[in-house]
Amino acid sequence: MPPTASSRPLAVVVACALLAASAAAQRPSPPSTNHWLDAYRDTAAQLIKAATADDFAWRRLAELTDTFGNRLSGSDNLARAIAWAADTMRKDGLENVRTEPVMVPKWVRGRESAEIVDPPRHELAILGLGGSVATPPGGVEGEVLVVSSFDELRGRAGEAKGRIVLFNAPFTSYGDSVTYRTGGARAAAQAGAVAALVRAIGPIGLRTPHTGSLQYGQGVPPIPAASVSVEDADRIARLTARGRAVRVRLTMEARFEGEIESANVVGEIRGRERPDEIVLLGGHIDSWDLGTGASDDGVGCIVTWEAARLMARLGIRPRRTIRIVLWTNEENGLRGATAYAQRYAADAANHVFALESDSGVFEPASLGFTGSPMARTIVREIGALLTPIGFSDIVAGGGGADIGPIAQAGNAPTMAYLGNPGRYFAIHHTPADTIERISPDEVSKAAAAIAVMAYVIAEMPERLPTR
Amino acid sequence: MPPTASSRPLAVVVACALLAASAAAQRPSPPSTNHWLDAYRDTAAQLIKAATADDFAWRRLAELTDTFGNRLSGSDNLARAIAWAADTMRKDGLENVRTEPVMVPKWVRGRESAEIVDPPRHELAILGLGGSVATPPGGVEGEVLVVSSFDELRGRAGEAKGRIVLFNAPFTSYGDSVTYRTGGARAAAQAGAVAALVRAIGPIGLRTPHTGSLQYGQGVPPIPAASVSVEDADRIARLTARGRAVRVRLTMEARFEGEIESANVVGEIRGRERPDEIVLLGGHIDSWDLGTGASDDGVGCIVTWEAARLMARLGIRPRRTIRIVLWTNEENGLRGATAYAQRYAADAANHVFALESDSGVFEPASLGFTGSPMARTIVREIGALLTPIGFSDIVAGGGGADIGPIAQAGNAPTMAYLGNPGRYFAIHHTPADTIERISPDEVSKAAAAIAVMAYVIAEMPERLPTR
Repeated sequence: MPPTASSRPLAVVVACALLAASAAAQRPSPPSTNHWLDAYRDTAAQLIKAATADDFAWRRLAELTDTFGNRLSGSDNLARAIAWAADTMRKDGLENVRTEPVMVPKWVRGRESAEIVDPPRHELAILGLGGSVATPPGGVEGEVLVVSSFDELRGRAGEAKGRIVLFNAPFTSYGDSVTYRTGGARAAAQAGAVAALVRAIGPIGLRTPHTGSLQYGQGVPPIPAASVSVEDADRIARLTARGRAVRVRLTMEARFEGEIESANVVGEIRGRERPDEIVLLGGHIDSWDLGTGASDDGVGCIVTWEAARLMARLGIRPRRTIRIVLWTNEENGLRGATAYAQRYAADAANHVFALESDSGVFEPASLGFTGSPMARTIVREIGALLTPIGFSDIVAGGGGADIGPIAQAGNAPTMAYLGNPGRYFAIHHTPADTIERISPDEVSKAAAAIAVMAYVIAEMPERLPTR
Repeated sequence: MPPTASSRPLAVVVACALLAASAAAQRPSPPSTNHWLDAYRDTAAQLIKAATADDFAWRRLAELTDTFGNRLSGSDNLARAIAWAADTMRKDGLENVRTEPVMVPKWVRGRESAEIVDPPRHELAILGLGGSVATPPGGVEGEVLVVSSFDELRGRAGEAKGRIVLFNAPFTSYGDSVTYRTGGARAAAQAGAVAALVRAIGPIGLRTPHTGSLQYGQGVPPIPAASVSVEDADRIARLTARGRAVRVRLTMEARFEGEIESANVVGEIRGRERPDEIVLLGGHIDSWDLGTGASDDGVGCIVTWEAARLMARLGIRPRRTIRIVLWTNEENGLRGATAYAQRYAADAANHVFALESDSGVFEPASLGFTGSPMARTIVREIGALLTPIGFSDIVAGGGGADIGPIAQAGNAPTMAYLGNPGRYFAIHHTPADTIERISPDEVSKAAAAIAVMAYVIAEMPERLPTR
């Protein structure tokens, strides 16, 4: 923002922006002159240039995922990755780097398998759902009851007793379909089933089940539950449709091994004028115990961290503090996010803005925003700085599980970096979540976009309006 | 062929066809009248109509693969599938249906796993190669030597002793790349390695290794060998490129359990005039012990069998015998093909033509042919009958592992039904070889094409020229 404009009240800026946006919607406009964003264009260009100059961030993601592998809460891998991240942040020149202890549950998958025992034996491609209980040592065996919805299960509840319920609902969107993963075991147990199988929450892969957490119900026995590949679900459904009784044996050793100390990793670029006002950026450092947690959510950690690293390297110190947090235990507890919100409860209102990258960085990517109309207008204007790297507009709706609690407490506007969902959900919570699927360009672009957005919001004279 | 033409010597037919083809290459020609093929057009159209009228063949493939699953040589699944196929062929009205005993090796995969033990433990996605020996019960452990070619291994042979060699050659084509799967263990053993890992012979999947057979060398110790996913191979290569010593432990229980009686399944439409002349069609009924062997090669069995079933149903009895063979043990021994060639050695020269479908039926598909120029000309003319279902031309080169020995012995021209290789090799020898990837249309079209080709070749007054 140019000096003459810097003392204008925000409302005026917003009113001007709204008028300009309205006018722009009506006709092509010439490049604006003396726009309030002009003050940020050079630095934004500098950040974009630095972020996209090489594959530094992709290589750092490779170092994280190659060296430490997947990082389930309570694992040694996670502890090592956290120590490495804090150490490396310090080397980057971030300030106030610290690990903030968080107790997390340690769930261990153990060995697991499932097979059709009749008709002729055939192995099923499964993954136990996170938080599931074990089966008895010899497994549970039962005839499968195939249902395509919770409604169908309610209608056929009388048939479920002693059986294994297979929820065979086609994948539509993650939001719609995931209810079978989270709630299938509870519903099946209510109907008297001994175990639940859930058709993979994702598009058909290569016999690829998708894990993820489940929720047991109060007063309902916890029963073992697993994701089964699309192909295996289809096969069971075809066999039963031909009148065959399909018997399946499911064997799982899953167990909780108590609580383990983990940590959120925090690093900052302290604000030069309003250090107490926080522009919060981050991802979660934990992952499921499969693949290497590259898209979920190693890359979210790396690209937000990279935004701060670039500022440190380029000597950019915005008015407000940029805070990077790599949360722990997003996947099966959200303990990191909860602990962060508790620890900073008194500062919640100082969280000016919060951005999480936890949907991958697959192209075509977008930025999603949740906040007041005034804030949205400003953010869309900032988004115009990202036109050179291919962003068209800020889409509606953006938050994240880890930024949720603190943003809720502080009424902070929230943003998500949103990778292409088709590519993301193809590998989400599977062994195929590795860096091979992510290109260096995708990582650089995400880092550039997040750096520019964070920088302008941290630099603007007036804070972004609250929700 | 019309009655007036039917007494013409074949050479005249061929000369006319060559002239016509030559003329056609020079200018667009009007639809030919009184072409020798005219006699077959109605029946060909009838076969195409019947094959594509419904999804019967796809449903039969589903029944085979759903009910019996994968069908490795020596397995109960294979024995049951063979019994079912013979029984069902009889019900279809095929003639002389029989199972011809063949002794096959029983190789059993057993449990297998591999992990990076240092840096921090991480499971590798592997599949033992077919025919591999086991490791000692606790596994073999060694530092990985990554090489990108046999040449590189030769140059670094001094570094291989006591180590695990990873052949990390990018997948180019199956023919080029498969040499690492078949010959990697031998080359690694010659250099003193304790085990071999081979980057998956296929495009990148979803952490998807590809099994397949290997060949040990005379005078070289057999060492355990496994396919490793592209992602895991890349990870090991990146770690070593950073100067990390990567230690891997490979544990395999693979073993041979002797020889088991299996069988080729044979069924026929006996020829009405020259029953001793055989038009041979088939695929292999065995598969690897993964997925359900749908594309490799359940579908090849079903589409060739379907060609004969349609003839039986439509009352079409060509001049020569149509013989369907579902060979056993193609994958790890070729015993079925060898036994067939031995059993019918005296009749080898009576095999007029042999077609195998063992490359899937994925669109875009084609027909490949190997034979004399004269035979090729005739076959291309017959191929024009397939224009309505989208075939443009018969491509050069077509055979099959199972038809190889008898065709070699009898100088028979050979043809392959060739599915799109990109789609085929994505699932080849993996757990993802299931029916979900194959559409009913693809199966119907393959059955139609094979039925028409076989019918005309079996019906023509003179036999197709030998190779």
